[in-house]
Amino acid sequence: MDIQQTMTDIGRAARKASRAMAKADTAAKNRALQLIAAAIRRDAALLTAANQKDLDAARANGLAAALVDRLTLSEKAIATMAEGLEQIAALPDPIGEITNMKYRPSGIQVGQMRVPLGVIGIIYEARPNVTVDAAGLCIKSGNATILRGGSEAIHCNQALAKLVKEGLAGAGLPSEAVQIIETTDRAVVGAMITMPEFIDVIVPRGGKGLIERLMKDSKVPMIKHLDGICHVYIDDKADIAKALPVAFNAKCHRYGTCNTMETLIVARDIAQLVLPELAKLFAEKQVELRADAEAMQILTGYPLLKAATEEDWHTEYLDAILSVKIVSGVDEAIDFINTYSSQHTDSIITEDYSRALQFLREVDSASVMVNASTRFADGFEYGLGAEIGISNDKLHARGPVGLEGLTSVKFVVLGHGEVRV
Amino acid sequence: MDIQQTMTDIGRAARKASRAMAKADTAAKNRALQLIAAAIRRDAALLTAANQKDLDAARANGLAAALVDRLTLSEKAIATMAEGLEQIAALPDPIGEITNMKYRPSGIQVGQMRVPLGVIGIIYEARPNVTVDAAGLCIKSGNATILRGGSEAIHCNQALAKLVKEGLAGAGLPSEAVQIIETTDRAVVGAMITMPEFIDVIVPRGGKGLIERLMKDSKVPMIKHLDGICHVYIDDKADIAKALPVAFNAKCHRYGTCNTMETLIVARDIAQLVLPELAKLFAEKQVELRADAEAMQILTGYPLLKAATEEDWHTEYLDAILSVKIVSGVDEAIDFINTYSSQHTDSIITEDYSRALQFLREVDSASVMVNASTRFADGFEYGLGAEIGISNDKLHARGPVGLEGLTSVKFVVLGHGEVRV
Repeated sequence: MDIQQTMTDIGRAARKASRAMAKADTAAKNRALQLIAAAIRRDAALLTAANQKDLDAARANGLAAALVDRLTLSEKAIATMAEGLEQIAALPDPIGEITNMKYRPSGIQVGQMRVPLGVIGIIYEARPNVTVDAAGLCIKSGNATILRGGSEAIHCNQALAKLVKEGLAGAGLPSEAVQIIETTDRAVVGAMITMPEFIDVIVPRGGKGLIERLMKDSKVPMIKHLDGICHVYIDDKADIAKALPVAFNAKCHRYGTCNTMETLIVARDIAQLVLPELAKLFAEKQVELRADAEAMQILTGYPLLKAATEEDWHTEYLDAILSVKIVSGVDEAIDFINTYSSQHTDSIITEDYSRALQFLREVDSASVMVNASTRFADGFEYGLGAEIGISNDKLHARGPVGLEGLTSVKFVVLGHGEVRV
Repeated sequence: MDIQQTMTDIGRAARKASRAMAKADTAAKNRALQLIAAAIRRDAALLTAANQKDLDAARANGLAAALVDRLTLSEKAIATMAEGLEQIAALPDPIGEITNMKYRPSGIQVGQMRVPLGVIGIIYEARPNVTVDAAGLCIKSGNATILRGGSEAIHCNQALAKLVKEGLAGAGLPSEAVQIIETTDRAVVGAMITMPEFIDVIVPRGGKGLIERLMKDSKVPMIKHLDGICHVYIDDKADIAKALPVAFNAKCHRYGTCNTMETLIVARDIAQLVLPELAKLFAEKQVELRADAEAMQILTGYPLLKAATEEDWHTEYLDAILSVKIVSGVDEAIDFINTYSSQHTDSIITEDYSRALQFLREVDSASVMVNASTRFADGFEYGLGAEIGISNDKLHARGPVGLEGLTSVKFVVLGHGEVRV
């Protein structure tokens, strides 16, 4: 099979379908989502069987246990996929919204209309639920999509592809609006990232390694998420009753998520007070602390204590490990964050009004917080309703990306025969 | 001189200056703009002398007359540059604006804050006024900028660089916030488009050839403008009293601008009526018409008539030439536009409510208009206050790009000690 030709055909079909999706009415898009949800519930047993084939193959190929875990599609996960689609159906339709219509001195009225991006390419690894979430978000936002999941989930993705096409057809929408690549050939990815004529944006979901490879060669803009080196800074004007639970939650609520705190920064004047208290909490969870020289002294006797190296400040542990840094105050904290943060999410704990404002303005990250756990940086927690991913970029979409991140706006001009003089 | 090292130094200095600019207050930024404007007025004679050197060199090098024309900095142009800066100073500061703060069920309050992009690289050709306009927009939007103008304008740009630095220093802002490259080495451009660690976005301003070359190699996202193949569609429900002046204005107001109409589309049922009337207007301006077979018949006897080829539908003439196409109605017109348009600006002339709405929704261009000349697609006409360029892209900024296009938003979370459960 000639992959390049196949992908060109798929790209052309997606571009064509995107025109139909852009003008599809809200009811048809919602109907498709509901039909797919119903089909997923009806065929739960088939999906489980397909997933079992993937799991057998994964085990035969000696896939790591963590990957097998992510590949597993439980009954609950199947129900959650269906519910997710119904939740997307319940969200307001972002497309066609007209805002800011204003009369200009020339007599024309100018505003902006929200429109789909066109064709979204999604490249992801094992998790089969991404297939359904991404398809749902793209349908609702009036985009066509090309989904390229990991080869490990191929049987499950093939089964889901059938159900998605069934739902689209049932709602009178083109079945090419969602195309799920059913070959495991790696050349597919190379083709996707080099066809800007057919794909308007790529959303890669996977490890930093995958994304860095794609960035190197992509000719298509990407909404991408690299890593989450998140900080909590405990200011000397912090309320300790807030600082302790927030810092503990930011590290220990879940270790493997991108909005987990990786570095704790503490103001010198409060370090003697706050670090021993926090150490008690972290000790219960057996969190390893990697501390700078000053913090080392305060934490002497902590069972899992190591000296932090320069490397630690750059590291996303995704594990029960935390680096600890002492600073003189908010200025040094902001400098440190702007130097080492991955510009994902950073939080200050303070009761000081001016320092809170300064931190919000000057920390150059996608989410900046006062007195809240970094774990809140999430599309659902922010009220976006659903999330296609989290963006580390500054252009277009920054932070959690919901339906709106899959749209653009065009200018709309209502005239009465005006000409330019 | 090692260009790569020089550009790395410039990039690093820009990144550092961007931090200071991001937190600069509105008064300081406005003060810098006013000081630069005053310095330009004061040193008008010096600027004229520098421009004269560029013009002498250009003529000695046999530069095309059109290019020499664009290079020329008249007294009026110098005054306009100064006024432009004062107008930018008078615009509201986009930075720091907080919108959509909403309480979430968790107790946190979430919204978005407008922030600068960071470092903007601008690559442009002859016109020295771009140096000042771009510097002004970047200062106001809290960005640092690296400006690389054409070698033809080097003396003028060096003279302007001094005045910009003087103004920044006078307002207490870092002089590295605006760095104007004072070497004519072409390797500078290659370096700029491959340093994403120092430059967040490139705005290329120049011909399609330049921009396509940059696109091929750029590792930095671009806000780019390729071409303007704009259409006016005269529907059979058009008011002819509006159709004639709008179509005439869209073509003949200025030939060389990107929002000029290049193709006229006319509904079959009104073509016999409208084309001969329009031909009278176009004949006065000696506009060459390149018509499809059907329009050829109607236009028989027009002095400058040619048969349109497929190539014509793809061509941005930037001249007194217009291609003419007959269609059955609005559906065919929309299909034609979505096939051949450069997605810049397209207008429908109609009194039919449903067709107007359909055109606005379904034409996939940066500006869509009803009963207005395509020439209105412009930052000033849209009320953006100023324009760094016009974007053909869908991501980030689409259509005329003002101050807001040089910004991004980050999420802001105000908490009271909330943790995620």
